[in-house]
Amino acid sequence: MSAWDLSRLIRDREVSPVDVVEACLARIEETEPTLNSFITLMPEQARDAARRAEAEIGRGNYRGPLHGIPVGLKDLFNTAGVKTTSGTRIYDNYVPDEDCTVAARFSQAGAILLGKLNMHPLAFGPTGENGDYGHMHNPWNPERITGGSSGGSGSATAAGQCTITMGSDTGGSVRIPAALCGIVGLKPTYGRVSRAGLTPLSWCLDHPGPMVRTVEDAALTMNVIAGHDPLDHATSEAPVPDYTTALTGDIRGLRIGVIREYFETEIDPAVAALTHRAIAVLGELGAEIVEVSLPLYEYAQPISNAILSAEATAAHRDILLSDGEKLYPQVRERLEEGLFISAAEYLRAQQARQVFCNQVADLLRDVDLLAGPVEPVTAPKILERRIEIEGQSLPAVPMLTKYTRVYNITGSPAISVPCGFAPDGLPAGLHLAGRNFDEMTVLRAAYAYQQATGWHAQRPAL
Amino acid sequence: MSAWDLSRLIRDREVSPVDVVEACLARIEETEPTLNSFITLMPEQARDAARRAEAEIGRGNYRGPLHGIPVGLKDLFNTAGVKTTSGTRIYDNYVPDEDCTVAARFSQAGAILLGKLNMHPLAFGPTGENGDYGHMHNPWNPERITGGSSGGSGSATAAGQCTITMGSDTGGSVRIPAALCGIVGLKPTYGRVSRAGLTPLSWCLDHPGPMVRTVEDAALTMNVIAGHDPLDHATSEAPVPDYTTALTGDIRGLRIGVIREYFETEIDPAVAALTHRAIAVLGELGAEIVEVSLPLYEYAQPISNAILSAEATAAHRDILLSDGEKLYPQVRERLEEGLFISAAEYLRAQQARQVFCNQVADLLRDVDLLAGPVEPVTAPKILERRIEIEGQSLPAVPMLTKYTRVYNITGSPAISVPCGFAPDGLPAGLHLAGRNFDEMTVLRAAYAYQQATGWHAQRPAL
Repeated sequence: MSAWDLSRLIRDREVSPVDVVEACLARIEETEPTLNSFITLMPEQARDAARRAEAEIGRGNYRGPLHGIPVGLKDLFNTAGVKTTSGTRIYDNYVPDEDCTVAARFSQAGAILLGKLNMHPLAFGPTGENGDYGHMHNPWNPERITGGSSGGSGSATAAGQCTITMGSDTGGSVRIPAALCGIVGLKPTYGRVSRAGLTPLSWCLDHPGPMVRTVEDAALTMNVIAGHDPLDHATSEAPVPDYTTALTGDIRGLRIGVIREYFETEIDPAVAALTHRAIAVLGELGAEIVEVSLPLYEYAQPISNAILSAEATAAHRDILLSDGEKLYPQVRERLEEGLFISAAEYLRAQQARQVFCNQVADLLRDVDLLAGPVEPVTAPKILERRIEIEGQSLPAVPMLTKYTRVYNITGSPAISVPCGFAPDGLPAGLHLAGRNFDEMTVLRAAYAYQQATGWHAQRPAL
Repeated sequence: MSAWDLSRLIRDREVSPVDVVEACLARIEETEPTLNSFITLMPEQARDAARRAEAEIGRGNYRGPLHGIPVGLKDLFNTAGVKTTSGTRIYDNYVPDEDCTVAARFSQAGAILLGKLNMHPLAFGPTGENGDYGHMHNPWNPERITGGSSGGSGSATAAGQCTITMGSDTGGSVRIPAALCGIVGLKPTYGRVSRAGLTPLSWCLDHPGPMVRTVEDAALTMNVIAGHDPLDHATSEAPVPDYTTALTGDIRGLRIGVIREYFETEIDPAVAALTHRAIAVLGELGAEIVEVSLPLYEYAQPISNAILSAEATAAHRDILLSDGEKLYPQVRERLEEGLFISAAEYLRAQQARQVFCNQVADLLRDVDLLAGPVEPVTAPKILERRIEIEGQSLPAVPMLTKYTRVYNITGSPAISVPCGFAPDGLPAGLHLAGRNFDEMTVLRAAYAYQQATGWHAQRPAL
């Protein structure tokens, strides 16, 4: 059940947070052996918190829509007194003293933390592998990846282990698992949600974002987590709207651009067909669909690679040098590559990024949103290093991030919203991106699409 | 004569811009063989412009205080149709199509461009050496350096070749020659004055600023050049005050901090005495003088070095690789060093910079201004690689920038205002730095000091 529906029942005392938490814990017990979503499960703390929420609501102190709602956080969100591993055993004993800002805001809103979710080590990978805490498994087919890096967040939300989870997105790490697990994942604008207390991967590309079952839940979560934070200098002081007011269902007159280049690169025909169908639905709902061109699209990969590698290596150089052999080998290799990026190359990539951003901004002066696929394929098999598209063998990692990283470079708000299932039974996501700080239009279109199609996150038969 | 005084005479038609320009050209003819301030002198264009200004003012179209005032620009400010060498013969044939924003604003204000001024090649050095266009010579003693990199701007203003000149300041390049040549040099807040159309040295440390004879002239110039420019994304949209309203002469109640560490490092006792005396004058004028501490001061040098080298190399890598052998050897070496700075080191330096900035911002919550020396010595001899302070031999380059680069790191507005002459007959500067975008308080204190002491820029006996 979505937080939107659940919160009404909790508010009206038709359902107790205690029962909600018990139902989630039962679901976790049932599905966790298959999925491996959690690094740390906190059943007793969650039960205590649920009892406190029940009592508080019983006394008439209802805090709002997230009160009593079970949430999970990717294990790079610092939680006071609860270990925060960032997905690597190097930090297996790290217990922060303080909550990160997002955790503190959830806590203040009365949400109940069920646990800390599995992730690609240090968030540096799009597949959802983890050598220390075990790989993540897709609820729709456990032989398949969840996508990464917020894989545990994807599987926990998709399988109903948590109502709301949080991920972080540096090259797609919220939207990739959202698309591959068939849920809603929103990467807000850079600077809209605080990163204070999150393990960094790339300061100028990192975005925390909600991974939820419905667009309404993305709006409810944003209402709690968005806004300026003096602890994160990158956060904007721009006022925060009530995101639920975007949920009108009306997108008549909206101009939606479809970037031609997204379909000129390798994409599975079944996924392309789902994407085209989804965009057609937006047209049927009254949006004006126009083809647009992003000639610099091919530079997204090298720009993002140089910046991400350099910043990730700067962030993790100390452990790379002291504990490199304990790192997941694929992550270690990527960090080692970063050592060889010169400052001049990095700065050139930042300059190229500006040109790239200008080109996307030009498009977004003409159209209100950009629509396309989140992924060129459905979830590949776990540990598969190459994927096949129309008989062509392609490297998995760049393929999985080729659409998503565009909006990390630009900082644009971007959502993955479920748009159906391919013949292999696996879900795909529709990608909608908007102008910076205009999450409202992104949510409005995603909601209208969701309402028209009924493609809420489906519950997999686990 | 200052622009302040001259502008009144021009406005009231007591003096014609034509006569002003002729007087400057005569002064240039007389002093230029000694000083070598100019790379490009534009006598005919200046005369034409002076005649146009005279006619315009004669028709009653007086544009404001810079109308008819002779100015010079460091040769990295692009000027339409006039070669802009950035101090290296590699660009000896480079003729920009468009004025930089600062040149365009001067032109719109009716100022008259006399020529393009000599500089340390690529602005990468604090001494004022130039192997291609000749070294710059200090008007107070031609065997001494002007200081760099805006050395020609320093000597041209000090010797009365131009009324107003512009320099750029990445590690002190406005304030160093201002102090060593005995004039007023203001580095405005980062983002206060547009760099559009200037050859970059370090994007995040570069600041253009006026080099003038009086604090009033700094205010007049700022009124013309300050403000947002869509062509320079780093410029702020903050409103621009009328800087002349800062010229009250009243600094009663102002809290001025004196950073203890500035006097615990090597400093010539004569310069230290001039600085202490200047600070005492501020106290006598009613400011409250307090000793403060900047424990991170010793990190200013490594932070600024890493960022500056990396960004300079990124900016000039192409010519370093294609035309390295044509570069001034000392500049070439510094650019080559930058090739070996890794992106991770650069990013670490940027992080350290943030901590450093926080410490300075903390000080500036307690006090309104920070006061100290601009230079630890008066002007050394040309090409002297080491300088002697109390019998200790020290490398010249880091010595000359050790106070100035603090405020490039923080972006703070900082001024050098003449504070007298050492026993060697060479001038020294008082350094005043304020809160970001608070040029007003910096100018207020500098003006009060100047009025109390009569230490306007003195005219050297050349």
